[in-house]
Amino acid sequence: MNKNVLIGQSGGPTVAINATLSGIIKGCRELYPDSVIYGARNGVKGILADNLVRLNEQVATQSQAYALETTPAAALGSCRMKLPADLNDPVYDVIFGAFERYGIGAFFYIGGNDSMDTVDKLSRIAARDGKPIRIIGVPKTIDNDLPFTDHTPGFGSAAKYVATTIQEIACDCAVYPEPSVTIVEIMGRDAGWLTAAAGIPRLIGEDCADLIYLPEVDFDRDRFLDDLRRKLKEKTNLVVAVSEGIHSADGTLIGADPSGKPDAFGHTMLSGAAYALRELVKREIGCKCRSVELNIPQRCASHCLSATDISESVCLGRAAVKAAYEGRTGLMITYIRRPGSLYALDYGTVPVSETANKTKYVPVKHIVPGGCDVTDELLKELAPLIVGEIDAPRRSGLPYHFKIK
Amino acid sequence: MNKNVLIGQSGGPTVAINATLSGIIKGCRELYPDSVIYGARNGVKGILADNLVRLNEQVATQSQAYALETTPAAALGSCRMKLPADLNDPVYDVIFGAFERYGIGAFFYIGGNDSMDTVDKLSRIAARDGKPIRIIGVPKTIDNDLPFTDHTPGFGSAAKYVATTIQEIACDCAVYPEPSVTIVEIMGRDAGWLTAAAGIPRLIGEDCADLIYLPEVDFDRDRFLDDLRRKLKEKTNLVVAVSEGIHSADGTLIGADPSGKPDAFGHTMLSGAAYALRELVKREIGCKCRSVELNIPQRCASHCLSATDISESVCLGRAAVKAAYEGRTGLMITYIRRPGSLYALDYGTVPVSETANKTKYVPVKHIVPGGCDVTDELLKELAPLIVGEIDAPRRSGLPYHFKIK
Repeated sequence: MNKNVLIGQSGGPTVAINATLSGIIKGCRELYPDSVIYGARNGVKGILADNLVRLNEQVATQSQAYALETTPAAALGSCRMKLPADLNDPVYDVIFGAFERYGIGAFFYIGGNDSMDTVDKLSRIAARDGKPIRIIGVPKTIDNDLPFTDHTPGFGSAAKYVATTIQEIACDCAVYPEPSVTIVEIMGRDAGWLTAAAGIPRLIGEDCADLIYLPEVDFDRDRFLDDLRRKLKEKTNLVVAVSEGIHSADGTLIGADPSGKPDAFGHTMLSGAAYALRELVKREIGCKCRSVELNIPQRCASHCLSATDISESVCLGRAAVKAAYEGRTGLMITYIRRPGSLYALDYGTVPVSETANKTKYVPVKHIVPGGCDVTDELLKELAPLIVGEIDAPRRSGLPYHFKIK
Repeated sequence: MNKNVLIGQSGGPTVAINATLSGIIKGCRELYPDSVIYGARNGVKGILADNLVRLNEQVATQSQAYALETTPAAALGSCRMKLPADLNDPVYDVIFGAFERYGIGAFFYIGGNDSMDTVDKLSRIAARDGKPIRIIGVPKTIDNDLPFTDHTPGFGSAAKYVATTIQEIACDCAVYPEPSVTIVEIMGRDAGWLTAAAGIPRLIGEDCADLIYLPEVDFDRDRFLDDLRRKLKEKTNLVVAVSEGIHSADGTLIGADPSGKPDAFGHTMLSGAAYALRELVKREIGCKCRSVELNIPQRCASHCLSATDISESVCLGRAAVKAAYEGRTGLMITYIRRPGSLYALDYGTVPVSETANKTKYVPVKHIVPGGCDVTDELLKELAPLIVGEIDAPRRSGLPYHFKIK
């Protein structure tokens, strides 16, 4: 009977992926007390290269766990690797050989859209060959674009960083009496959830983005300039939030990087929507205009964590262990929001085969006609996810980042 | 006898300029208890437009003061306005007319390099005409490039934001096993103090910028590529910090905005040093390369304040009031670091005429030969300025920003 466990992290980093790793370790200590808890370096790449580390000793104390939970990115390292469509490919023999050699009875893979594809393929092989291993996908992405889960781990902290920073930028840009436009570019290739967070502060009467453009609606240059001209009559200093993925009706990205090569999953690296719009505004409207790309800090700003997000991400890891312990496999763990006026979350599961490579978009009903803003209903849905601060450990005023050796 | 006081804020915002405003108000409550405390909207522009507000009632309680101290930017609004060189210009009659009309006995002007020029001109007129007003310059700039003061208010928090964010970016970029270079552009037109802060985390063994380029040294394209190639042999994922003001030996900015018009003080708006270098690295080295411009958040990230900076900035305001109360005028308040191994600060003064339009550069002795890093001695000098966290008020997970009505 295989009884050890293996954990891997994959895809783009977030600030919550290590919280989930910690949650899995905590869950294993309870339900798999005699097991070796292995971590794979750089996701499946570590399994293929026989590069595993023992976590039992490294994350043993409460303070080690807390430091891990407040460290950004992927403490085990990550990878972007698409496994072959042909399930008879020899690469799978290497992976299942490693599972056997290390006595792995449960494999937890923390990742986004693309990583659930890996979980699905491994689950199908395990089912086909009757392998005694439980394989569980544990979601994460700042993009909040996974279906079947109320929201995604890592999104709440990224949304808090975006909302906080937009509010600060709005404060900064309001100091001069001359008209100005500040365009802030926010991550989100296909879905505009994170960009929508730029509107949350208005729910409590704070300054934030005056105009919000998501990739769910085709971007129209002339409508955009009209929106700006209209708003500039009401307010001197405007802040505009745009998703990196905004595109014209023919699908051309606004400010796409012409040299961008697609990555392993066919994604194109983007840059410059805000920059392109800034040049447009200078040319067509003529007022002062700045562009700000929030960039990598959106997904690694552990100095601005949502306590709600981090605590849920830890619980998510525990829920994954519970599912495996109960003999379930081929699943992705999900968040289920309880109905009712008070925010409360439960943990569920969905067959991973249903989730892989699907995207959850911001519903059109939550985007105002014309596409220059989102509804208060959407903002109220997102607002509970950013609540609560975490006093992450600091030394000499600097973050303390936990390292797995 | 004129007994009221007037406060103005000028120049680019920082997160500490409102702390200094609060300090001045606190000082006035003690030393000018019966005075009206006026604030000028948008600096001297508010004086010229007769746009003053009464602060006595608006910043009256401890919690109002605390909220003001943790709100970024300039609560009174700011301006960029150069007063005429001709001290007989009628604009000065308007300003001194307002001083008289409102019974102003002390005028405090919080600002940077350029604002001290305003303080100097007004002081000279007051001295020439025997006006019964004390005029005190109170420094602020995230650039830390004012002479005669150990460091500048606002720099410590900006440096903390830079060091924290660089550490987080280093964590984020280290997750993939493939070589990568991440180039982070940091504010600093002429002086590299803030960029140097990207090295502070190494003093406690944390990841940070592997290479640091300041504007004090001419930037050489080939030497830069050599530095990268050498470092890539030691380390897979590099983080490079560059000042926005880096330039080649002939003075050409790296990635200067060709359309940039100079501002009122002859400064050119910059953009794109990191972007230009990213394209260079992709072309010449061929590894994955990202660019990140830290941009406006460097000067407005009140969610990452240095308690040392904010507390000093409040004390600075009090010191300014004390100087005026003692009958002194034409001064800029300064920070004086006590000698000794433990960090401690005193407050001094310098004639403002000596400070105006001068820049303090990072001494060449603190830049390693070849210009790709700074010394540990410099980092040890900067490190105390980022110490201490502030639990700024939040509501529903968002910052609470104090507004002056």
